Amino acid sequence: MRYISETDFSEIVISIRDLIEKKNQGALVNLLIDMHPADIADIFGNLKKDERKYLFPLLPAEQASAVLTELNPPIVDQLLEDVSEKDLSTLLDKMDSDDAADIISDLPTDIAQNVLDQIPAEVSEEVKELLTHEEDTAGGLMALEFVSVNLGNSVNEAIKTIRKAKKTISTIHNLWVVDDDGVLVGSVSLTDLVLAKGKSLISKIVDRDIQFVYTDMDQQEVAILFRKYDLVALPVVNAAQQLAGQITIDDIIDVVEEEASEDISLFAGASDEEIQEDSFIKISWVRLPWLMVAFSGQLIAALIIQSFETTIAQLIALTFFMPLIMAMGGNSGIQSSIIVIRGLATGEISADSTWHRFFRELRVSLFIGLVFGLLIACIVGLWQNMMMGIVIGCTLNVVILQASLFGGLIPFILKKVNIDPALASGPFITTLNDIFGLLIYLLVITTSIPYF
Amino acid sequence: MRYISETDFSEIVISIRDLIEKKNQGALVNLLIDMHPADIADIFGNLKKDERKYLFPLLPAEQASAVLTELNPPIVDQLLEDVSEKDLSTLLDKMDSDDAADIISDLPTDIAQNVLDQIPAEVSEEVKELLTHEEDTAGGLMALEFVSVNLGNSVNEAIKTIRKAKKTISTIHNLWVVDDDGVLVGSVSLTDLVLAKGKSLISKIVDRDIQFVYTDMDQQEVAILFRKYDLVALPVVNAAQQLAGQITIDDIIDVVEEEASEDISLFAGASDEEIQEDSFIKISWVRLPWLMVAFSGQLIAALIIQSFETTIAQLIALTFFMPLIMAMGGNSGIQSSIIVIRGLATGEISADSTWHRFFRELRVSLFIGLVFGLLIACIVGLWQNMMMGIVIGCTLNVVILQASLFGGLIPFILKKVNIDPALASGPFITTLNDIFGLLIYLLVITTSIPYF
Repeated sequence: MRYISETDFSEIVISIRDLIEKKNQGALVNLLIDMHPADIADIFGNLKKDERKYLFPLLPAEQASAVLTELNPPIVDQLLEDVSEKDLSTLLDKMDSDDAADIISDLPTDIAQNVLDQIPAEVSEEVKELLTHEEDTAGGLMALEFVSVNLGNSVNEAIKTIRKAKKTISTIHNLWVVDDDGVLVGSVSLTDLVLAKGKSLISKIVDRDIQFVYTDMDQQEVAILFRKYDLVALPVVNAAQQLAGQITIDDIIDVVEEEASEDISLFAGASDEEIQEDSFIKISWVRLPWLMVAFSGQLIAALIIQSFETTIAQLIALTFFMPLIMAMGGNSGIQSSIIVIRGLATGEISADSTWHRFFRELRVSLFIGLVFGLLIACIVGLWQNMMMGIVIGCTLNVVILQASLFGGLIPFILKKVNIDPALASGPFITTLNDIFGLLIYLLVITTSIPYF
Repeated sequence: MRYISETDFSEIVISIRDLIEKKNQGALVNLLIDMHPADIADIFGNLKKDERKYLFPLLPAEQASAVLTELNPPIVDQLLEDVSEKDLSTLLDKMDSDDAADIISDLPTDIAQNVLDQIPAEVSEEVKELLTHEEDTAGGLMALEFVSVNLGNSVNEAIKTIRKAKKTISTIHNLWVVDDDGVLVGSVSLTDLVLAKGKSLISKIVDRDIQFVYTDMDQQEVAILFRKYDLVALPVVNAAQQLAGQITIDDIIDVVEEEASEDISLFAGASDEEIQEDSFIKISWVRLPWLMVAFSGQLIAALIIQSFETTIAQLIALTFFMPLIMAMGGNSGIQSSIIVIRGLATGEISADSTWHRFFRELRVSLFIGLVFGLLIACIVGLWQNMMMGIVIGCTLNVVILQASLFGGLIPFILKKVNIDPALASGPFITTLNDIFGLLIYLLVITTSIPYF
């Protein structure tokens, strides 16, 4: 297999587009034949829709199947539009069970059923079994391609099992050891197997101190386990502790990226799925809800400002600092919420430490509030008048305090009621803090205007 | 070894704190003796500073050394304050070379030198060698604990090498194969080794089609390779292609999390290192610069508003919609920048696709601008007057367009001049878009006020 370096990549994409335009099928097949499926998937990501649809059917089934598992959902959907149910069955048959299940779960129900009917029964049974698990649980992540040996087997028998398994499993990390009832007992590393005598019994070299998870564990928890214990493969068991499947690190690295991208996207109210999306309607559709939150919030802000119209008419200068008060509240709120959200996601902050965080945030925001409160008091004092400076300084202090505590606490509350804490960031918290900041500011100014 | 389930965790922390208060050293040692270092590290994360400092010296050197490698920098610093240089040398001696190098690189130079002097020469040579590489490159990530065999060795000789290596290396994934000059030739998987005959030559079973990286490759690029090709271990070579070290997936999963946290933190101008930090001065110090950007930007906004004082006095109602215009610009800008930043970080967007992105953003923002422009035009039309509605609607459209294009393009520009694109998000882009939005809004309103 050939790997493509980053520097060659653009050139290869250009020549492939050129060959597609010339409809030179022979040259295309030759060029792609020994490429890594992940490289071909990257190339697909850089082609236009029509080019992808021309190129995909040229790939041999084995390669096409591998490329599909590497592509993002919007592109997979495009490519499968033109593939017959029969060809699709062939492609799925060549995949690992978990990859096949992922693709089938995204198909419309009737097509999925037809496709499943055409796959050999043993494969479709596996896929159906995997489809019973929620997508973002250990059961949804696991594959059925793993190597298990019986506690009573000898090392030589285990090696025979590996020889057989090697045809369908690309990389073997561990052998899982089960008893006669299929209950998970422990694991044997390949290193231990290499060093053991052929006639030794597995029961002599099995490591019984291993981590395992149940099929219904949330994928984020699974990722935390992998990271914490530096795992490469993790066995999954059903409620009766019988070995049901295996999760490998390559799927976990995707989960980590996915969850991070999801968090990042929630901050902005955008979705990382749009990275490969070309339809502007679909992209806008993802972005609109968050913008609508901001829009509605700012309409409320407009109403609040209107209700203080007389105060503003009395002292136009107070509008100068409206954006400043709102922005400082919004930004402080985001800072404290983002840390808590990230810590909760990676497991570095436990849900129990709410009060500890609260007091920490209290000290930090009092200090930050003091710094900017003093600063703006001096600036406004020199620019307008001393009294106004003092009032605005105190207000900014209160606004920063309120926004930080709010930002630091809401993620904990969401976590407690089982809502994704990441929702507490982005337009939602900023808009809320904008409104609170504005209200506090206008109320304080109105009360103190007689003393200016 | 014993693993702690999430449900037991809080209870164990409580009993440990209790035992620390009672100064019951015997019970503490018994409780911790068979725990996984990663669990002990988690417990340390939930203790107060004094409790940590009491508990740490009670751990046996082997365990203390393993726990240190799992802890975050602020806690490591706390614990090492009271450790003598001699004890520290003992702890470092028991670590993998890359972990030891990480800890030493964080020490003050004079202490680091003293500590290195007390470690056995062969270990300190390794650490010094690793310290010559930049922290965020392949050389900075790699460990010197790996297994390599010569192309001319037999399988039996390779197995002997593994037996020897097993004492210092916890998990072996692959054997790297080198020629007589130490140049990397390929790899042998443990599976292939298990299945090979003892007398076969390594040269017969070596896989020469492997990925490797040079010591100076950026860690983010390394992570992209791991993710793309589903790697578990990757050999690192020097400029002469000689095998220099090995990077394993557990380090990469940390890199992925780290880079994601870094991106997320840059959006907010906070740092994920503060998760474990307790000093409010240090936390504020990290947050202040970004807030200062926002503060300065909003002072400029205040000046802009002041310069339109006469317009505002003429029509107070125009202030109602100032926050709305600014917020819609800020949020649209964040949405388009966040997608580009994330895509550039994960490798899903190539730096060449600037124009493609530009036109996509153009279409999306024109559409979104149209939606909210029409909406605000109707609302203002009913609330104030028709003409004002049309003017504000058109302005909002322009502001959203400007903010989105700005947000989508700046990350590409930063990438081209080798600045982290993530800087383009957060307070910086929001504040800039706030100011532009405000300026556009006030200019348009001032020009069109005669027609209201």
